[in-house]
Amino acid sequence: MTTLWPDQTEAFSSRHIGPRSSEIGEMLRVVGASSIDDLIDRTVPSAILDRSNHGVGAALTEQEALARLREIASRNVVMTSMIGQGYYDTVLPPVIQRNILENPAWYTAYTPYQPEISQGRLEALLNFQTLVADLTGLDIANASLLDEGTACAEAMGLAKRVCKAKSDRFFVDADTHPQTIAVIRTRAEPLGWEIVVGNPETDLDASTVFGALLSYPGSSGALRNPRAIIEALHANGAIASVTCDPLALVMLESPGALGADIAIGSMQRFGVPMGGGGPHAGFMATRDAYKRNMPGRLVGVSRDSAGNPAYRLALQTREQHIRREKATSNICTAQVLLAVIASMYAVYHGPEGLRAIAGRTHRMASILADGLRALAVKVETTAFFDTITVDAGASAALVLQRARDVGINLRDAGEGRIGISCDETTSPDTIRALWRAFCPDETRLAKVEQDLSVASHIPAELKRSADLLTHAVFQAHRSETDLLRYMRALSDKDLALDRTMIPLGSCTMKLNATAEMIPITWPEFARIHPFAPAEQTQGYAELFAYLESTLCAVSGYDAISLQPNSGAQGEFAGLLAIRGYHRARGDDARDVCLIPASAHGTNPASAQMAGMKVVVVACDTNGNVDVEDLKAKIAQHDGRVSAIMITYPSTHGVFEERIVEICELVHAAGGQVYLDGANLNAQVGLARPGLYGADVSHFNLHKTFCIPHGGGGPGMGPIGVGSHLAPYLPGNNGVAISAAPYGSASILPISAAYIMMMGDDGLRQATEMAILNANYIAARLGEHYPVLYRGANGFTAHECIIDLRPLKDQVGVTVDDIAKRLIDHGFHAPTVSFPVAGTFMIEPTESEGKVELDRFCDAMIAIRGEIAKVEAGEVAMDASPLHFAPHTTADLAGAWDRPYSREEGCFPGGVSTTKYWSPVGRLDNAWGDRNLVCSCPDISSYIED
Amino acid sequence: MTTLWPDQTEAFSSRHIGPRSSEIGEMLRVVGASSIDDLIDRTVPSAILDRSNHGVGAALTEQEALARLREIASRNVVMTSMIGQGYYDTVLPPVIQRNILENPAWYTAYTPYQPEISQGRLEALLNFQTLVADLTGLDIANASLLDEGTACAEAMGLAKRVCKAKSDRFFVDADTHPQTIAVIRTRAEPLGWEIVVGNPETDLDASTVFGALLSYPGSSGALRNPRAIIEALHANGAIASVTCDPLALVMLESPGALGADIAIGSMQRFGVPMGGGGPHAGFMATRDAYKRNMPGRLVGVSRDSAGNPAYRLALQTREQHIRREKATSNICTAQVLLAVIASMYAVYHGPEGLRAIAGRTHRMASILADGLRALAVKVETTAFFDTITVDAGASAALVLQRARDVGINLRDAGEGRIGISCDETTSPDTIRALWRAFCPDETRLAKVEQDLSVASHIPAELKRSADLLTHAVFQAHRSETDLLRYMRALSDKDLALDRTMIPLGSCTMKLNATAEMIPITWPEFARIHPFAPAEQTQGYAELFAYLESTLCAVSGYDAISLQPNSGAQGEFAGLLAIRGYHRARGDDARDVCLIPASAHGTNPASAQMAGMKVVVVACDTNGNVDVEDLKAKIAQHDGRVSAIMITYPSTHGVFEERIVEICELVHAAGGQVYLDGANLNAQVGLARPGLYGADVSHFNLHKTFCIPHGGGGPGMGPIGVGSHLAPYLPGNNGVAISAAPYGSASILPISAAYIMMMGDDGLRQATEMAILNANYIAARLGEHYPVLYRGANGFTAHECIIDLRPLKDQVGVTVDDIAKRLIDHGFHAPTVSFPVAGTFMIEPTESEGKVELDRFCDAMIAIRGEIAKVEAGEVAMDASPLHFAPHTTADLAGAWDRPYSREEGCFPGGVSTTKYWSPVGRLDNAWGDRNLVCSCPDISSYIED
Repeated sequence: MTTLWPDQTEAFSSRHIGPRSSEIGEMLRVVGASSIDDLIDRTVPSAILDRSNHGVGAALTEQEALARLREIASRNVVMTSMIGQGYYDTVLPPVIQRNILENPAWYTAYTPYQPEISQGRLEALLNFQTLVADLTGLDIANASLLDEGTACAEAMGLAKRVCKAKSDRFFVDADTHPQTIAVIRTRAEPLGWEIVVGNPETDLDASTVFGALLSYPGSSGALRNPRAIIEALHANGAIASVTCDPLALVMLESPGALGADIAIGSMQRFGVPMGGGGPHAGFMATRDAYKRNMPGRLVGVSRDSAGNPAYRLALQTREQHIRREKATSNICTAQVLLAVIASMYAVYHGPEGLRAIAGRTHRMASILADGLRALAVKVETTAFFDTITVDAGASAALVLQRARDVGINLRDAGEGRIGISCDETTSPDTIRALWRAFCPDETRLAKVEQDLSVASHIPAELKRSADLLTHAVFQAHRSETDLLRYMRALSDKDLALDRTMIPLGSCTMKLNATAEMIPITWPEFARIHPFAPAEQTQGYAELFAYLESTLCAVSGYDAISLQPNSGAQGEFAGLLAIRGYHRARGDDARDVCLIPASAHGTNPASAQMAGMKVVVVACDTNGNVDVEDLKAKIAQHDGRVSAIMITYPSTHGVFEERIVEICELVHAAGGQVYLDGANLNAQVGLARPGLYGADVSHFNLHKTFCIPHGGGGPGMGPIGVGSHLAPYLPGNNGVAISAAPYGSASILPISAAYIMMMGDDGLRQATEMAILNANYIAARLGEHYPVLYRGANGFTAHECIIDLRPLKDQVGVTVDDIAKRLIDHGFHAPTVSFPVAGTFMIEPTESEGKVELDRFCDAMIAIRGEIAKVEAGEVAMDASPLHFAPHTTADLAGAWDRPYSREEGCFPGGVSTTKYWSPVGRLDNAWGDRNLVCSCPDISSYIED
Repeated sequence: MTTLWPDQTEAFSSRHIGPRSSEIGEMLRVVGASSIDDLIDRTVPSAILDRSNHGVGAALTEQEALARLREIASRNVVMTSMIGQGYYDTVLPPVIQRNILENPAWYTAYTPYQPEISQGRLEALLNFQTLVADLTGLDIANASLLDEGTACAEAMGLAKRVCKAKSDRFFVDADTHPQTIAVIRTRAEPLGWEIVVGNPETDLDASTVFGALLSYPGSSGALRNPRAIIEALHANGAIASVTCDPLALVMLESPGALGADIAIGSMQRFGVPMGGGGPHAGFMATRDAYKRNMPGRLVGVSRDSAGNPAYRLALQTREQHIRREKATSNICTAQVLLAVIASMYAVYHGPEGLRAIAGRTHRMASILADGLRALAVKVETTAFFDTITVDAGASAALVLQRARDVGINLRDAGEGRIGISCDETTSPDTIRALWRAFCPDETRLAKVEQDLSVASHIPAELKRSADLLTHAVFQAHRSETDLLRYMRALSDKDLALDRTMIPLGSCTMKLNATAEMIPITWPEFARIHPFAPAEQTQGYAELFAYLESTLCAVSGYDAISLQPNSGAQGEFAGLLAIRGYHRARGDDARDVCLIPASAHGTNPASAQMAGMKVVVVACDTNGNVDVEDLKAKIAQHDGRVSAIMITYPSTHGVFEERIVEICELVHAAGGQVYLDGANLNAQVGLARPGLYGADVSHFNLHKTFCIPHGGGGPGMGPIGVGSHLAPYLPGNNGVAISAAPYGSASILPISAAYIMMMGDDGLRQATEMAILNANYIAARLGEHYPVLYRGANGFTAHECIIDLRPLKDQVGVTVDDIAKRLIDHGFHAPTVSFPVAGTFMIEPTESEGKVELDRFCDAMIAIRGEIAKVEAGEVAMDASPLHFAPHTTADLAGAWDRPYSREEGCFPGGVSTTKYWSPVGRLDNAWGDRNLVCSCPDISSYIED
């Protein structure tokens, strides 16, 4: 047969992988390996190397994978969702969908740690913060959290940090979404905090708690005035958190005006599809006084080297960095892409557009409620924004079924109660259909509609008093043309993967292929409520099953949870599984988590959150775990070792030879091995953690499995576990890591498509090429900069660290100088000062070709030449182009008194004149932190204090 | 009811229209009108003004329109198409779909008449020309024609122009696609050329023809060696044209190598979906000797002011401009967006990828044929590339039905013959299904497959001898990452509507809304063969019916033909309808077409092609038709007046008051009125040509009805006619204007969506705002530059002409100087020197808001200030920034010896430092025409001769 039919497929892997087969020979020569197999044999320890197929199967073409995903999608049923419970249908304006969500200039960008090349998305995020602060009536808002459930848990943590009272008790409004309560309980338990759930008006003793969470409106839709409760909390020194709905806040008195200290919620219904649960941008706003305790990322206004206003991440040393093992939050990523979408939704609609949408939504709910009352239905909710709960008694099942029969999902609130939520898409026909579901008597229905007279159901004292979105940005971009140009102008300021490699060791910026991205905006994935009935979500179920089985195959684990919606969430979930495992066996004393000194800051933070005591294990000079110290620490904590958290290959970019031994030592001590999957990109197809000794890992789908970075989120951190840990995965025993049962379900097709299109062979080749590319860079740059760590045979894993500390010491050039000078060459800098201060960590990924690798190496070598001039005393450091980088066109046009020419400054190494230009000069971070402005500034605020 | 339900809809018209309601008052004040109604009353002649609703209906929201189009699309059935006949399924790589076809940076660009801001698409088009020249083995290729049928007709015209023989006879290979033969016949008949259709090997007397069209391969799939026939033609001084398939040419000896003078065809199967017939890029290549006679656009390499290579349209004074009423082609637009896609398909696959695709396609066809033979099916075709014809005799209907039952369309070639075409998507399962359709005996099928031994069916002497695509661009962008960056880098060089207004009087660059664009890439519109069975294309039928009825409503006509796939094609079709009408009434003497002096060059060219004699009617000093001269010309040609072609509002941007009288005069003389619809944008909702005296118009769907300009195509020019002309529309009486029955069907959803979302009121408002915007610009600029033409009350229509001739005469500043200086301000220039040399024609459209209009006016006023300095003798013209515009970053970085500062040069009027930069300096057009290079140059060719 094989001789008859021609080869049908063009391998997608050849599109995903950068180097051409014709280039690989030369690259191998440079790194000093005779073949790919030779390179891998000498890089990956033989104890773990296993090239056998993992069982993912043969690769599909792009068309085949899209057809398969289309078939999977077709098994999801798009209904009119009125389930509510934190998720609402919404209209994503097509112009935003196409030009942000489907535009690589936005979705392939990295977190804006390099502010000069991130001004576009920083401005969009500042708009988001302004929107949140304005809606909530509070001083300062961050640039997104993971979802509403975790935002509420973060609010609890913030309350605990800032509250002076000694209490360990936190009160939660019983009328809060159940998934939020579950997340809060999961977070509180390991920390020893007590959660009291009740009616705040009757069950809350403000003198006994460090804080309370109030729901405004409640999960049932009920609107209650929280002012008196907040006052009582304050009178007792406790913190008042309010979880709120942003569309409701358009009409409602803001939490800030009602006295709240913290407001949190989800910005989902500002244009972000429900997506089966996520991703969406959670939000948090608080008082100015608490800003330094706020979790998550904060965008602020500072100034650049020319004194012009410029944006950057403010107060960068955040929670998990500051506190590590004392942290009560491990939050690392954000939901940037979704926050940007929500901000643009607000920019596009402006205050009057949002008022129209909110007003219409409320009016629909009011018509629904009053009509039902006229039909003698028992509507429980009297004051509400968009949601009502009715007591349908014994006929509840019939009503729910009748609604489903006409394509409408309602919330089955149990015990005969039904929740109904309106949203911006609710139509008169839908309202009529609901009336009919309760009372199928057309004559009566017609009469009710004819006689109906409807008033607002928002109590007067809860109507918004403040102005809405008065900043100019919310007035200026109302035509599609204007918004399109605004979005384009912002994205043009930013460098993303569509213009350059982003050689970040701290992330894996590989190709996010278009075919992988296409399914996520199909309505069958996008317009699904996370709590839709299972018979409507068979497509998602199949997708989840596919990913679970392939991730197991790739990793050697036995079971997967897709719930954690970031890598740090995965860490937390994995440690909770370990904790649950020990406890189930009565092994309650195990509370020590061993963590190597080189670990990412989230590791100790996650351990702390999981109720563990962090014990640091030393690293040797090669960056490997000091096994002797490990043994000593195990001995010292005999019987108490719960887990080790180890990143493999190490954060130093090396395959430690003794990984199997390390696993065995921990197991022998009764502990479990948490293998941080951040570097799984270097193992897929070559080694399986679940088979060589690890018990649990998280997989960064946004690194290894192609979910785009989105400018700083969404991430996705499912975990894999051995079968003995499976009973302790999220969803079991009340453990809730994130709000939605499958986390950010709508982006899972990206990873599924990648796995389908690569197949066993493609996945292995990708890993091999990632290792080759890293070693190629290490070989070329190694002649000019010291490479800090190498493996036993002199090779690095998929990334390499170059040591710039000697240059700082000897020449006075900083890592920042070099990072900014790379901008002049059109590059995004590698990871700066992580995991080792004063170094670059470089990860090229398999998707970069030799031409781009060489362009990067040439730039780094040219910069080394500029450093050499300073070294030789030819140029003073503060007169060098390194000092003035990045150069802007304003520099070029202005007076020029520098010892180097404009060409040398702006077009180093023969860079094209059509190169990327940084829109601003180097940021002054310290000034920005001293003069913190975190919402859209008026012109006047740009004047220095 | 209206008091119960809230207003459900956010009007799309408020997104489409630029000025906010808060700005309109100030704009009216500036233009001197008290209200919009007042402005319109004083602009549009009362004799034609009619504000009543045209019957399009109420506006839908974006979501509603998308839902309706989704429903329409669902009535098209996507089958496996093996019909062939010039249309083949193909895989559009997702990365190209998303980043070109769905990317406004590409689809909203204008024709690259301003080369400095068009270097990206010019490079892509040069790649296209290189691809075509390489595949066809000819010297020079143009940058696309409309489709294969019209390309063949253009080849006939070119042959006639360059052939020295006196013959009026043209021979056409009988094995040519029937739609091509129909187009050729339609073109030849009015010109008095005789078409002989026959077997070239037996029926062609080369001594009697000026040229011949050979099909290679034939429509039946048959491959014949045309060398001897070409030699015979040459021996008789006749021209040999070969229509060919680009994928076949990957394997076949090229037409050039076989001696052909002209090669034409369609680049559809290079990644462009069938789309129900279009749009796709037709192509033409020819000998160097004929380059100045070639129709269509030609991209060439020239140099810029710094001496660097740069691209531009070469030999710009093309056919219809040079020859006007002597033209044998009226081609004006091209299919740029589709040519760009096809070029990127070739760049992405490269020579070895194309060889794999072509080889696989041929292998599949060979397996199919040999398998059928083994099943005793009578396969007629012995030598072939991808298509075979079988004689199924009496069982043909059964076979066709069996194939359809398993989702496969075949070609019913009549008389028991069936055509089957393979393509890059053909799978083994499809081949097996076809065998089964002929022989449903599984045992026999299995045996045939097992025993089959297949060889190539391309004769040895027809195998390609030359290398394929050796230029570096076809080697360099093979990973998705690399291609993505290449496409982004190209688009960044270009200015399109996503960054600035494009205030072109010669086109209408209004918003191309995202919601309008979304349906065109749905498979239900994209993957439909134009000759698919009617029961599979009910969706298209509904779409056509909707557009026909709404275009009738808007225009006042009675019938529509959607076939013409450009405005010029519409002109030709309309004139043919008039011709057919006269002839049917025995009024054969009517051969005069009256055309005002101000007409677009396509008007006389179209008249000439329709067999009419052009008689020019003078214009008065206001640019209006000189009615006295019209009367004189009518009298002079008494009894011979066939038609008048008049653009309304005039190309001078004025509503002529006497339009009704003009129509009446022509009618009284027995003539018909062709009202050129290029300016329908100024009439929709306010006046209906079909009601005030016109008999036929074409509608530029790419102007008035939002099909994006695509960087220079696709266009779409359906025509509307009064009922008396309906029998003479394309499709009737053998008239074929373009290859596909509904022209560029796949882009019609764009216009349908626009009409749905605007409704009666929105369409009228759009026209009103287009008129307001033009008058606002005329008012603001009128204080600084003379406005050339105004209507009776001092208002312009939807565009205005500003007269720059005095500045040329008095100061020496040219229109080009000002056009290029606008680039420094970040603007695309208005239309330069059309319809009046030495002027700008400015059409802002309704989609631009006041801020952008003011930005443009401010730039023009700032430029006037720079001119004033030259005028005052303060600066020499050749030392002025006007002379050096556009300024590049290379200028900025280089030595500076100009009398103005770098800031003044590069950031005039306080333009942002993040502005658009022209990637090249001003183009040297003359040098490029003297040193014509029209395919991708080697480095060596950049060295000046």
